[in-house]
Amino acid sequence: MRCVEIVATSGIEGLRLAERPTPKVGPRQVLVRIHAASLNYRDAMILSGGYVRGVSLPRIPLSDGAGEIVEVGAEVTRVKVGDRVCGTFFQRWITGPVFPEIQEAALGGTAEGVLTEYALLESDGVVRFPEHLSFIEAATLPCAGLTAWHGLFEAGGLKAGDTALFLGTGGVSVLGMQLARAAGARAIITSSSDEKLARAKKLGASDTINYVGNPHWAATVREITGGRGVDCVLEVAGGASTKGALEALRNGGHMAIIGGRSGPGGELDRRFVLQKGLRVTGINVGSRAMFEAMNRAITVAGLHPVVDRTYELKDAVAAYRDFQSGKHFGKIVITL
Amino acid sequence: MRCVEIVATSGIEGLRLAERPTPKVGPRQVLVRIHAASLNYRDAMILSGGYVRGVSLPRIPLSDGAGEIVEVGAEVTRVKVGDRVCGTFFQRWITGPVFPEIQEAALGGTAEGVLTEYALLESDGVVRFPEHLSFIEAATLPCAGLTAWHGLFEAGGLKAGDTALFLGTGGVSVLGMQLARAAGARAIITSSSDEKLARAKKLGASDTINYVGNPHWAATVREITGGRGVDCVLEVAGGASTKGALEALRNGGHMAIIGGRSGPGGELDRRFVLQKGLRVTGINVGSRAMFEAMNRAITVAGLHPVVDRTYELKDAVAAYRDFQSGKHFGKIVITL
Amino acid sequence: MRCVEIVATSGIEGLRLAERPTPKVGPRQVLVRIHAASLNYRDAMILSGGYVRGVSLPRIPLSDGAGEIVEVGAEVTRVKVGDRVCGTFFQRWITGPVFPEIQEAALGGTAEGVLTEYALLESDGVVRFPEHLSFIEAATLPCAGLTAWHGLFEAGGLKAGDTALFLGTGGVSVLGMQLARAAGARAIITSSSDEKLARAKKLGASDTINYVGNPHWAATVREITGGRGVDCVLEVAGGASTKGALEALRNGGHMAIIGGRSGPGGELDRRFVLQKGLRVTGINVGSRAMFEAMNRAITVAGLHPVVDRTYELKDAVAAYRDFQSGKHFGKIVITL
Amino acid sequence: MRCVEIVATSGIEGLRLAERPTPKVGPRQVLVRIHAASLNYRDAMILSGGYVRGVSLPRIPLSDGAGEIVEVGAEVTRVKVGDRVCGTFFQRWITGPVFPEIQEAALGGTAEGVLTEYALLESDGVVRFPEHLSFIEAATLPCAGLTAWHGLFEAGGLKAGDTALFLGTGGVSVLGMQLARAAGARAIITSSSDEKLARAKKLGASDTINYVGNPHWAATVREITGGRGVDCVLEVAGGASTKGALEALRNGGHMAIIGGRSGPGGELDRRFVLQKGLRVTGINVGSRAMFEAMNRAITVAGLHPVVDRTYELKDAVAAYRDFQSGKHFGKIVITL
Repeated sequence: MRCVEIVATSGIEGLRLAERPTPKVGPRQVLVRIHAASLNYRDAMILSGGYVRGVSLPRIPLSDGAGEIVEVGAEVTRVKVGDRVCGTFFQRWITGPVFPEIQEAALGGTAEGVLTEYALLESDGVVRFPEHLSFIEAATLPCAGLTAWHGLFEAGGLKAGDTALFLGTGGVSVLGMQLARAAGARAIITSSSDEKLARAKKLGASDTINYVGNPHWAATVREITGGRGVDCVLEVAGGASTKGALEALRNGGHMAIIGGRSGPGGELDRRFVLQKGLRVTGINVGSRAMFEAMNRAITVAGLHPVVDRTYELKDAVAAYRDFQSGKHFGKIVITL
Repeated sequence: MRCVEIVATSGIEGLRLAERPTPKVGPRQVLVRIHAASLNYRDAMILSGGYVRGVSLPRIPLSDGAGEIVEVGAEVTRVKVGDRVCGTFFQRWITGPVFPEIQEAALGGTAEGVLTEYALLESDGVVRFPEHLSFIEAATLPCAGLTAWHGLFEAGGLKAGDTALFLGTGGVSVLGMQLARAAGARAIITSSSDEKLARAKKLGASDTINYVGNPHWAATVREITGGRGVDCVLEVAGGASTKGALEALRNGGHMAIIGGRSGPGGELDRRFVLQKGLRVTGINVGSRAMFEAMNRAITVAGLHPVVDRTYELKDAVAAYRDFQSGKHFGKIVITL
Repeated sequence: MRCVEIVATSGIEGLRLAERPTPKVGPRQVLVRIHAASLNYRDAMILSGGYVRGVSLPRIPLSDGAGEIVEVGAEVTRVKVGDRVCGTFFQRWITGPVFPEIQEAALGGTAEGVLTEYALLESDGVVRFPEHLSFIEAATLPCAGLTAWHGLFEAGGLKAGDTALFLGTGGVSVLGMQLARAAGARAIITSSSDEKLARAKKLGASDTINYVGNPHWAATVREITGGRGVDCVLEVAGGASTKGALEALRNGGHMAIIGGRSGPGGELDRRFVLQKGLRVTGINVGSRAMFEAMNRAITVAGLHPVVDRTYELKDAVAAYRDFQSGKHFGKIVITL
Repeated sequence: MRCVEIVATSGIEGLRLAERPTPKVGPRQVLVRIHAASLNYRDAMILSGGYVRGVSLPRIPLSDGAGEIVEVGAEVTRVKVGDRVCGTFFQRWITGPVFPEIQEAALGGTAEGVLTEYALLESDGVVRFPEHLSFIEAATLPCAGLTAWHGLFEAGGLKAGDTALFLGTGGVSVLGMQLARAAGARAIITSSSDEKLARAKKLGASDTINYVGNPHWAATVREITGGRGVDCVLEVAGGASTKGALEALRNGGHMAIIGGRSGPGGELDRRFVLQKGLRVTGINVGSRAMFEAMNRAITVAGLHPVVDRTYELKDAVAAYRDFQSGKHFGKIVITL
């Protein structure tokens, strides 16, 4: 089978196209013909070697893939050949809270990823995706979509009528904004680009703010909410935006900490957390049960995730370069 | 001021139009010029004397009213003259769980109600209603709307993508169905009338079932949900429908027990609760904080409650008779 | 290996001692040398054929066993040879909420039980038990102990300072009372026997009531709590006691429905649930994560479960007869 | 009546003994003859002017007092003359989550405090304290005790069998340690003084660590918990200890942020929060409902808060000086 491998953690140069034998299916495993896989910030960080411990090389990258089951192990009853599925980021996180053993097997990091024609997955580590989605759309869900769902609804308790704030128009933010709107919440989104804000508005954003044009964007968020502040924020950015996010939250509001872009200034000032009685939670993707709950929400709403651009497998390096340029809106997907 | 009074708990004959002096406002109270008031099943039961203890006669009936604040007490800072407000069912339930003292002062029962030109309310016992609603629409919220909200979201934990079941097309069910849809949930509703089901469909119901034409409606609910069953049911009916509701719920699902229509057959079979690991909660309207949360959801969704028919104050008796006939869809409102 | 088998669901006569080959261990399984197994009400019901569907005969009975791991499969890393463990009632319920597939494999019912010298279990389906417990004590935990823990703490939210009510002195009630006391709660327990109440008092019960001598025991419970009522009840009994339990609960209190002893009169009156805003949950034993949480509580408290009498494997029939007589206090255990 | 006043926010020099007329009781207020009041870190900060906005001078200091009701307003039914009560820190926080209006009236800051012979309080703003406590003991509860309770149980969800970590032996930490032990949890406490650790051990601490003698105390905490880490920490200290607390927490554990001692180094590193999926909550004392729940726990356990030293009213300045020296263990109380 054809696949991509990371052969060195030296940046994009460490990627290469490769050929491997198609894996053998164990009694509780399934073989999935991957049709699409999407890129996340974590994937870029893994390439540069700094992010994840326990990555042995060569390693097939990417956690987010969608495909069709072509073979099931002897003991598998949960799914069947022909099912259209995504793999779960943590292959062993079925439900309940995360615990350390679960974190040991993450696709595209400590375990082989999905940028391959055939991925060998646990039968408990796949999820049927909503019928109205294409493979390309479904490939956006396992990490970016689920992280947004977990942060907003499972950890943050976002309810209809609440207001959520999204920082920038990356994959987690745009999917989060769509999910928040589908759940009857108000969604405020920021960007440095008026063009991206216009796209967000068209997708359903309640309010948009250009944070370059408006350095007091956090105060503007408070005004928009009648002085109350927002109920939830997905804090994906780190750096200076963390402070603005703390300011924009209402008393007792919730901040979901997402992603590792922690530059200087991204620390949480405990006085802020204290005075406003804030709640803060670190979000590690999510469980299979959360994934299934999100899929039901996507199905009821008839929601389509936003895919900005697609690349073929042979152009995987170009896809990574495009991703790192930060010019995309929503997700970049590689098709196989 | 003009008002209606219950002078005897002998049924509708116990109602009469009356004239009372306009009340004096205490330091932490407000005077509200009521413009609309709606009927609930509880109001019919109070008339026949069986439902509520502690009702001294004559008593102004009805809990659900909307109007404008025309006077505030000396210590009041929370609201001001001109605010468009509803009274809260329990005047002293601000937030948190209910406790017995709270239940002692319920509008139109143990305390004077709102079927009057001027109602004297606690300044903590009023809520500004969404700006896009008329007084007539807002008058549907304090008991029927809030009970549905509490049962679905606060007690039941209904989330986007979940499925809720509504029994019949009374006020609680129709408002509940609208709120569930606004929150991204699927809503199944039953009725004995195809015409009412057509109206429900037009209002957004995902699926409709005529329970007369289909005595196996609970099995149909399970089929519609792919065998999983529904996540939440608002059990407003009692009698035979309780059993169907238990059958329709998924394992671990939630039943909100609402209203007092408990005829024979309405008991909960503990074996059902046990085998399916169900959760059951008795719903007593809700707190002011829940009311405010519901109003935010109604505002974000731009939702309009369904008012079936309106009557003038002088025709209050006719309104009660209409309500008791059970032919309405949604709510019956009296204007003042 | 020696074991007991159910060969007919005709009552105690359907049991027999048997010899079977020791099972072969699969890659994710473990073999446990069982040293002790305890009886639950469910085990008696399974014998009479009415309780559990999907029991194929012959079947090794009992869900609650404790022993030592003597062999692990090739892929097992979670536990090791020599670990002192209990099996989990539902072999596949690791954490999170229950779902139907989980209920399909329950020890001693739909799956082979633990009244055998060697039990073959999933490596994910065993739990190390507290070091200060003997095998005999640990054998009381998997069903009776965990059901009490789940009902009190996971579903009921019992906290230090709350009051819990226990009906009778069976295994669930006595373990529940010990756990409640260890968690800083007040515990009221009832029995028809003053002698059993004296034993309960010695074990730490805060208050005891003889419900035969005091038919108004529910009113007495309310008095003892200063009129407030209890926060939680483990409703293990069904029949007339259900009504008393509803009466004894505080407004907003929680009833955990446990066990299948549902005779006439055991239905839940929905008016009671409604008026008091009660919460009711059906309890199906619990997950492995709950078991581990309970074990931590038992360890911190240094708590010892109460074993009333022990029998040898050859006297298993006598153990069942003793259990069915209902004269025991706490648990009856069979040693192997 | 005699009282103490802050006349300038210039440190301890700004305190003076004063004489004021005894306040008149409004219809929903009560007059409390204060017998004891205790010092918190906040009180020291208020004196130096940096902490609380909206403190008008002269102001009676201290939030934590216990006394006897000597007069009630005309509309008061909740409490009566002779009741032994504490005032609540936020006079208007009865139950549910905090909101900004509640924070506007805090005793000894934005509202008059309790270092006075007679305090005028809201009838909804007092709580009967456990019968087995003296006025001196009860005076430790309103801020220090309730903050610990809120952080451990209401926000942190500490359960029997969990492990909690306490940093130092100030009032919040020592009371928190006692409450955790009463609730069946394990409690680890740190100090720079072996003598204080010995006192903590005597009071029930499960494990003690001298953080001066053992700079790797966080690693030691992890070892003590078998590598799992602690479930909850009360982060009262800020500065370097914040980092250790983050390290000591288990994956998914909870940090309660308490108090304003935020020096450099006290920021929360978002990467830690993220990698371990931590939960963090800012704790603002607590509601009256939480206070009542804590009192029930104290009653069931028969717990006595630790009072290190008492001073008479005339020696209030000496009490403040003693407090600021940081040599106390538990609480310092002024008697009136």
